[in-house]
Amino acid sequence: MPVNIADYLFTRLHQIGIRSVHGVPGDFNLVALDYLPNAGLKWVGNVNELNAGYAADGYARVNGISAVMTTFGVGELSAINAIAGAYAENIPIIHIVGTPSTISKQEELLLHHSLGDGKFNVFSGMYKRISCAIGEIHDPYNAASVIDHTLRQCWLKSRPVYISLPTDMVQKKIEGEYLKVPIDLNHPDNDAAKEDHVVGVILRNLTAAKNPIILVDGFASRHRVLEEVHSLIDKTKLPVFVTPMGKGAVDETHENYGGLYAGVGSHPEVQGLVESSDLILTIGPIRCDLNTAGFSSKTCHLDAIDFHSTHVTVRDSEYLGIHMRGVLRKIIKQIDLSKSQTNTKLTPRRVRENRDSSSAITQDWFWSIVSRFLRDNDIVITDAGTANFGIWETKFPKGVNALSQVLWGSIGYSVGACQGAALAARDAGDDDRRTILFVGDGSFQLACQEVSTIIRLGLKPIIFVICNDGYTVERLIHGMDADYNDIQPWLFTEVIRTFGAAEGSYKTYKVKTKEEISTLFEDKVFNTCNILQLVELHMPKYDAPNALKMTFEEIARRNSRNK
Amino acid sequence: MPVNIADYLFTRLHQIGIRSVHGVPGDFNLVALDYLPNAGLKWVGNVNELNAGYAADGYARVNGISAVMTTFGVGELSAINAIAGAYAENIPIIHIVGTPSTISKQEELLLHHSLGDGKFNVFSGMYKRISCAIGEIHDPYNAASVIDHTLRQCWLKSRPVYISLPTDMVQKKIEGEYLKVPIDLNHPDNDAAKEDHVVGVILRNLTAAKNPIILVDGFASRHRVLEEVHSLIDKTKLPVFVTPMGKGAVDETHENYGGLYAGVGSHPEVQGLVESSDLILTIGPIRCDLNTAGFSSKTCHLDAIDFHSTHVTVRDSEYLGIHMRGVLRKIIKQIDLSKSQTNTKLTPRRVRENRDSSSAITQDWFWSIVSRFLRDNDIVITDAGTANFGIWETKFPKGVNALSQVLWGSIGYSVGACQGAALAARDAGDDDRRTILFVGDGSFQLACQEVSTIIRLGLKPIIFVICNDGYTVERLIHGMDADYNDIQPWLFTEVIRTFGAAEGSYKTYKVKTKEEISTLFEDKVFNTCNILQLVELHMPKYDAPNALKMTFEEIARRNSRNK
Repeated sequence: MPVNIADYLFTRLHQIGIRSVHGVPGDFNLVALDYLPNAGLKWVGNVNELNAGYAADGYARVNGISAVMTTFGVGELSAINAIAGAYAENIPIIHIVGTPSTISKQEELLLHHSLGDGKFNVFSGMYKRISCAIGEIHDPYNAASVIDHTLRQCWLKSRPVYISLPTDMVQKKIEGEYLKVPIDLNHPDNDAAKEDHVVGVILRNLTAAKNPIILVDGFASRHRVLEEVHSLIDKTKLPVFVTPMGKGAVDETHENYGGLYAGVGSHPEVQGLVESSDLILTIGPIRCDLNTAGFSSKTCHLDAIDFHSTHVTVRDSEYLGIHMRGVLRKIIKQIDLSKSQTNTKLTPRRVRENRDSSSAITQDWFWSIVSRFLRDNDIVITDAGTANFGIWETKFPKGVNALSQVLWGSIGYSVGACQGAALAARDAGDDDRRTILFVGDGSFQLACQEVSTIIRLGLKPIIFVICNDGYTVERLIHGMDADYNDIQPWLFTEVIRTFGAAEGSYKTYKVKTKEEISTLFEDKVFNTCNILQLVELHMPKYDAPNALKMTFEEIARRNSRNK
Repeated sequence: MPVNIADYLFTRLHQIGIRSVHGVPGDFNLVALDYLPNAGLKWVGNVNELNAGYAADGYARVNGISAVMTTFGVGELSAINAIAGAYAENIPIIHIVGTPSTISKQEELLLHHSLGDGKFNVFSGMYKRISCAIGEIHDPYNAASVIDHTLRQCWLKSRPVYISLPTDMVQKKIEGEYLKVPIDLNHPDNDAAKEDHVVGVILRNLTAAKNPIILVDGFASRHRVLEEVHSLIDKTKLPVFVTPMGKGAVDETHENYGGLYAGVGSHPEVQGLVESSDLILTIGPIRCDLNTAGFSSKTCHLDAIDFHSTHVTVRDSEYLGIHMRGVLRKIIKQIDLSKSQTNTKLTPRRVRENRDSSSAITQDWFWSIVSRFLRDNDIVITDAGTANFGIWETKFPKGVNALSQVLWGSIGYSVGACQGAALAARDAGDDDRRTILFVGDGSFQLACQEVSTIIRLGLKPIIFVICNDGYTVERLIHGMDADYNDIQPWLFTEVIRTFGAAEGSYKTYKVKTKEEISTLFEDKVFNTCNILQLVELHMPKYDAPNALKMTFEEIARRNSRNK
């Protein structure tokens, strides 16, 4: 059963759950694009490659995995920031690069999109450092195994992989029989004896602890152990908290949910509970500056157990080569805290009321009422400005998927991610699932053209553009009134029409007061989301969420100590 | 005389002729930005980093050299495609990256914008392959020499350099006395004996040749030998031709100008003259596919002398370590062709009339009348679609500077480059110099937001958006009617208003017929360019310039031979 290499690759993408492929066409990937429909895949056709990468990232965070196709040189390099972000944040993206023919490479031809030196391994070389596997297809003989191996690594390590597909390999025939057996995506079991030992140590620690807690961080969802996390909560009845990157990972309506913890950026009662715990179980920790309010989180002291995808640490002992999934499952099966003295008392987590007397929509006020607007299963995307910190103040309904780049923090990311996330929801048949984007005016401008893709695909997110005259997060860091933090004021409500949306296919709103936004949040039609909507949301120029202020004050304090 | 490192660096930028610095602010470069005005530099503040890189490229092509500032990780990676393009095309750009403090790096902190692994050399590592020098400032002790060396390499090699400026180095004091002596930007003289030998060989060949010609290619202007080229033409009276990448390098109104040569993409009489020459002197050759109409140019056979910035080849001999400038100067001084039998006859180069009976603006017709519209000293920018080939058909007035990426070919490049080029003209005091951009609808969309920067800076280019419903150049390559070559139709004439331009500060036009464009080209106000103007120029979807068709037919022919 001979099949083209392109057919093989795309069938594999479909088998692992991808339905739409992001990217931009280019002369070295055109022929391959012809084969997408055969495999049941749709082509997105983004406006540029960076946005395509962001969109693939958003798609993967909702769908589990994604693919993006670019062209050699110009295309793949334009996408590299998005892929580096996915590498940092552990998002599985299959990046397929259409490259010149193997013959051109052998002959070292001076092709366009190359550096003009006959070298064709420069860009894949750059990708080596931000991909967990590189699959170079240059021979039909081993193409199937290269593809299978690369895709498997992508899933297991939950990080981007890079596949180079030369133009002359696209239609080369290979054995299609292999396709009958799906790629094995199961993580190899832990060594049983090692696992038993770690589980024993953890159980002893847990049983002896007075007030242990669970802290769910970003890599818990990325490495797909949320089911285990929820079982662990139900079985142990321990209080559970999330970090900023863990937000959305656990059911915040659960009676054991205690709130968001990030050192000095937390609510005082949350900070008190977490920091007085004598045993913190952190699932999937990422202890970067903005996830810990400037390294002020106190979770990696001696009374801590960390669960990673590659190892587990218990106090000062490190157990290498152990995946947290197996350990968590065994703990859930074996644990019995009925006789231990765990005694952390939670007060039901409420959203802080942030009343102020002005009519202006202030940040703390706004984020406190967003919780009322959100619904079960919403997809909520925040950009790396004020929104990434404001969202700390919200309490999510069940099943909310929160997308943001707390570690990588590339501004503009959220606009592409919004397209990818909304498409993933539609591909999954969840047509009623709402996709809601909160992005600053400056960030929106970087990636604005992806609204065009949203229009073309008929997607229906709500886009809140927070208009506060520039890069507010940077004003807080340095240059409060510096003109380098200013931006050109746009007519944001005109963007959708300009990008070619048909009259009646979208709605825009301009909102400047607390009353106006409250009314909008109550509006039935607005809430239904059966049309593309953009809200120009005006907020004071110098205002920022409390968590943002606390975080950057902490960073400044730290920096001044270092001087 | 102690000065801050930032003051030192920026004073050096000013000394080598830079007046505006492109880039996007980010938390690791904010403090440095405060020091730009002290040194007499203006901050551009682009909308995103890829566009900032493109703009810096355009600025350098008009001004001679440029600078762009980004922030660690997210910023520098977003710009990498633009810098790789500048590396390929030999454009000197100083890329300054604001990086985390040296202390954070030593402590391997998990900072945002990093991969979260405590490593801070990954991105500079990627830049090593596309920069001719990397200047890492990590110690005030040698900061001045690192800066001076890096800037000197940028100028001499005419390629990008990378400077890493950690936040804690910005205000460190260093000796400012050095600033009194400008950086030596002179290329070291060639070894005299070696040079004399090469010159002797070349002169003997030239004197013996029957019909020698000069062919000016892209690296002649990039390595700044145009003055020598013009002297050589005047002294020898030899016919001179240009390649696509050499277009704009020589005075096309000169009586010795013979036209544009690119193999099968040339006019038949030009092709005949060049290919029947028994000695071709190519100045600054770049023999990449699209500069040679699919490798159909015949200029590197045995009867050829190639002048490079690093070596000179005469027939089958290679003379390494010789810069063409010294060689050219000596040839100009010593040559005497009065007694030799050179006998190439040129017919005055005319623009081909491309009449057709339709009212639609066809490509060949359009490009044939563009010559009439162009004026002395115009800056003409073409994007990598149909425009890059259509421009072959034009005859330039004196002093036209033509910007394009024939080798790198990144679509969208021209929009950023337009901003940079127009600003460079204004920085040079050439307020009357017109900047004219020809860009396809698909390409425009990739980088559209840089029109916002053009508005904010009050620049006044004419932007022709060629509206032909998608990626026409790709249709010609593969997938004539494939939907992956379609794009979302925009209201291009609405873009300027949406991006916040004040009423009366711009004009837009929608042009669909030959008559309409002819009228516009005659329009005095339109020609004056004292206001920002955008022309939505409708052309048939499947139409392409003849040169483009010939080139891709040649490439297809070559590829099929390889199958």
